[in-house]
Amino acid sequence: MDMNDLKWDDHGLMPAIIQDQSTRQVLMLGYLNRETLEETLNLGRVVFWSRSRKSRWLKGETSGNFLKVEEISTDCDSDALLILVKPEGPTCHTGETSCFGASDA
Amino acid sequence: MDMNDLKWDDHGLMPAIIQDQSTRQVLMLGYLNRETLEETLNLGRVVFWSRSRKSRWLKGETSGNFLKVEEISTDCDSDALLILVKPEGPTCHTGETSCFGASDA
Repeated sequence: MDMNDLKWDDHGLMPAIIQDQSTRQVLMLGYLNRETLEETLNLGRVVFWSRSRKSRWLKGETSGNFLKVEEISTDCDSDALLILVKPEGPTCHTGETSCFGASDA
Repeated sequence: MDMNDLKWDDHGLMPAIIQDQSTRQVLMLGYLNRETLEETLNLGRVVFWSRSRKSRWLKGETSGNFLKVEEISTDCDSDALLILVKPEGPTCHTGETSCFGASDA
């Protein structure tokens, strides 16, 4: 992945799909900026940009439920990331494995 | 899924993760607005909003590679969708099954 090829949105962010590498369950969608992507690559744990708090957010920093990075890929137009992880605990703040699925759709 | 609970971004859009229901492969990330989500629900095929062309985009309309909707869920803060599909052909315009994975990361 060449950082210089990535296309950030007008807020300097990029959506990242977080998927459990072993179960293939989609766990959440988050956003990264260039700095948190670099930190994610260095740390080996996913670091997001929190749009609501407008701050860096190391997932697991308070809960202990880190997302260990296994593989990162970009899509064909370089404006989205797919991050395969090994989750160290439930991903959702509700205690559920995934942030998706509470819907009755 | 209650349409009125959904949180659209400042462009009136919402990201949607498209995942193959049977293989669990993540195929692409696209965006929907309220109208294309309603059309997606009615048609049973995914209809996106193309941000580059600024128009409705029925995926498969030209290629024949429709995305048959199997299940739609929202995430815990109602600002992203996970759409499980049965893809009727390759999803990426390059002919690949998925838009993700071309990276050498």
